[in-house]
Amino acid sequence: MAGKPLAAIVSAGLSKFGRRTGLMTRELFAEAAKEAFERCPNLNPKKDIQMIFFGQAIPESLEHQSHAAPMITNVIGTVPVPCIRTENACASSGAALKCGVYAIVSGLADIVMVGGAEKMCNRTTSEVTEGLATALDFFVSSWSGLTFPGYFALMATAHMHKYGTTEEHLAKIAVKNHRNGALNPKAHMQKVIDLETALKSRMIAWPLKLYDCSLITDGASCAILTKPEIAKKFTDTPIWIVGSAMACDTLEVYERDDYTRSIAIITAGREAYKMAGLEPKDIDLAEVHDCFTIAELIAYEDLGFCEKGKGGKLIDEGETEIGGRIPVNTSGGLKSKGHPVGATGVAQLYEIYLQLLGEAGKRQVKGAEIGLSQNLGGAAASCVVHIYRR
Amino acid sequence: MAGKPLAAIVSAGLSKFGRRTGLMTRELFAEAAKEAFERCPNLNPKKDIQMIFFGQAIPESLEHQSHAAPMITNVIGTVPVPCIRTENACASSGAALKCGVYAIVSGLADIVMVGGAEKMCNRTTSEVTEGLATALDFFVSSWSGLTFPGYFALMATAHMHKYGTTEEHLAKIAVKNHRNGALNPKAHMQKVIDLETALKSRMIAWPLKLYDCSLITDGASCAILTKPEIAKKFTDTPIWIVGSAMACDTLEVYERDDYTRSIAIITAGREAYKMAGLEPKDIDLAEVHDCFTIAELIAYEDLGFCEKGKGGKLIDEGETEIGGRIPVNTSGGLKSKGHPVGATGVAQLYEIYLQLLGEAGKRQVKGAEIGLSQNLGGAAASCVVHIYRR
Repeated sequence: MAGKPLAAIVSAGLSKFGRRTGLMTRELFAEAAKEAFERCPNLNPKKDIQMIFFGQAIPESLEHQSHAAPMITNVIGTVPVPCIRTENACASSGAALKCGVYAIVSGLADIVMVGGAEKMCNRTTSEVTEGLATALDFFVSSWSGLTFPGYFALMATAHMHKYGTTEEHLAKIAVKNHRNGALNPKAHMQKVIDLETALKSRMIAWPLKLYDCSLITDGASCAILTKPEIAKKFTDTPIWIVGSAMACDTLEVYERDDYTRSIAIITAGREAYKMAGLEPKDIDLAEVHDCFTIAELIAYEDLGFCEKGKGGKLIDEGETEIGGRIPVNTSGGLKSKGHPVGATGVAQLYEIYLQLLGEAGKRQVKGAEIGLSQNLGGAAASCVVHIYRR
Repeated sequence: MAGKPLAAIVSAGLSKFGRRTGLMTRELFAEAAKEAFERCPNLNPKKDIQMIFFGQAIPESLEHQSHAAPMITNVIGTVPVPCIRTENACASSGAALKCGVYAIVSGLADIVMVGGAEKMCNRTTSEVTEGLATALDFFVSSWSGLTFPGYFALMATAHMHKYGTTEEHLAKIAVKNHRNGALNPKAHMQKVIDLETALKSRMIAWPLKLYDCSLITDGASCAILTKPEIAKKFTDTPIWIVGSAMACDTLEVYERDDYTRSIAIITAGREAYKMAGLEPKDIDLAEVHDCFTIAELIAYEDLGFCEKGKGGKLIDEGETEIGGRIPVNTSGGLKSKGHPVGATGVAQLYEIYLQLLGEAGKRQVKGAEIGLSQNLGGAAASCVVHIYRR
């Protein structure tokens, strides 16, 4: 039996993901908030929400904007409700969610909003790549020209060398996530691809090709958390957060003794399972951080969905497909739904929320009761894991 | 009697503030952490610390660096302990402190480190000004060339118009804070100034002159918080946090109906007093956010140290001097100690911590039992207030 609820999710919202020309962070977040508020008519945002945590990664680089927190509480009409921005690179809103859980469990706030956003498509790919590279150690990496595709390529080649993982294994993850994303009306790229298309796509950093990489996307996400005792005031069907954990690794990969495994994922996963009183085999579906296909494969292993080194086999056997033993990234993942970096952590929650409510439409996982989200920052330097149950 | 302790401070550390050539964020934070660890020999950082919150404002602009959180947990030797960066402009580490209080009160973490840092002196004044201006609304302000000195000048002229506040009142705040800072060996500018020097200094944005402005400084701060029940394992003299509150205002001043008062300061102050079961008259000393002298004067009023409009009279009467009724910014404040923006919130805690322990040397406030810190972000768009007692 799953552990005691830490917090209830009583509503959630997600903007359409994609190239949202003319909309900046504030409008994107307002769109996500509008859905969350409409889903929850008993909530009076200004009166009820006591605290907001907002994750955003690199607005200074992409929008000349820091201090987005007061802008967020302003745009959704909740001034003077406090809002804190959290930033852990691509795990920024996973971190916001973790802070939200702390606030609820503390009893100092009964109703908390969490969310995130990123505006990226106003910039060129090279500007975005340079902005994202600030999440590596400047002196070691970005200064030398090493960016994220290069880092995840190092992890991929190490994994191929040690465990026999192949380019096909990685491409199969891309194909699966695109198939799922095509069923998600909010996904950025609703396009089915075949294995050949993935394998023949343009090389980015060997062995990672274009279709091994997640998308540069605009988007925002949010959720309303309450303490468990009052959840039924806002919804008949709260979803419970039963595990909330995080870990950090060295910022730089060179300081680690093994590129094929992540201490941050392993530690955060282990702690989340422990809090929830659950094991990997209890998880019905998961949203994991597929910034690159290799990151999803490593997540399979380090979250215990399969033995270490057997991630390739897991995808070969279709176990992570919808209909498989443990569907992963039913939303399309960062790969196909898109990766507005600050929004991603809570966007993962949003998918699990829909799935556990049975509202995921054509991509619904039948009978899903327990879900997990895993949000990564940097080259697996931050990892946040949450576990949810119906 | 002051309220129930939310958390205990069992140690704290502060780097030397100043132009710390050659030291970046990681080294500055390590210096602050070293002091905190040495003050607390019973603490085994790697084994005991369960969570870290680290405030930093604009490292993307000044160091090409985001995602400093894993770098911080790495540099102090605590990997895989999770670390979340908080960013609310100059209230970034005030926000980190508030998150730390949530984590402790939640019971999910018994021992939490909070802190902040900023590296600024590697940049020109105009680069720093531009970086800081990202904390205003880009489309409204920085794009048009309006930066913080201009905003606080608007508040000053409004206050002068409405309440008869004078340039001398503001200059007296500068003189007081420089006098205090000269007694603080860690202050950036340990230099006494006279009223004439302040009044005749170079005009920045009328009526604010050079000596009305805080310093561009490198520095870092940290503190170790525990749940109250275990504090005595680490120190015989814990300092208790009894109030922890925050509020946000509109990001932009133009949306407010009165430039002379701050909804964020008033709201956060009121809630902190309520949590602590205290009133303004109970406060023995305070560190307030004197990014500009007018900000300190408005804080006097909006925190209730005097009636609205009487801030000038309070400074005229010497009430906020060491030896006065309510000494303010005994550390020298942002004005003289310096303002490494991300470090400031927890640096304020550090001063109150020393004062309540009776370890503030030549600037000691005799018999201080209750202290308050007030940390502002942007043009008073974020405000964090904490109350402490011996």
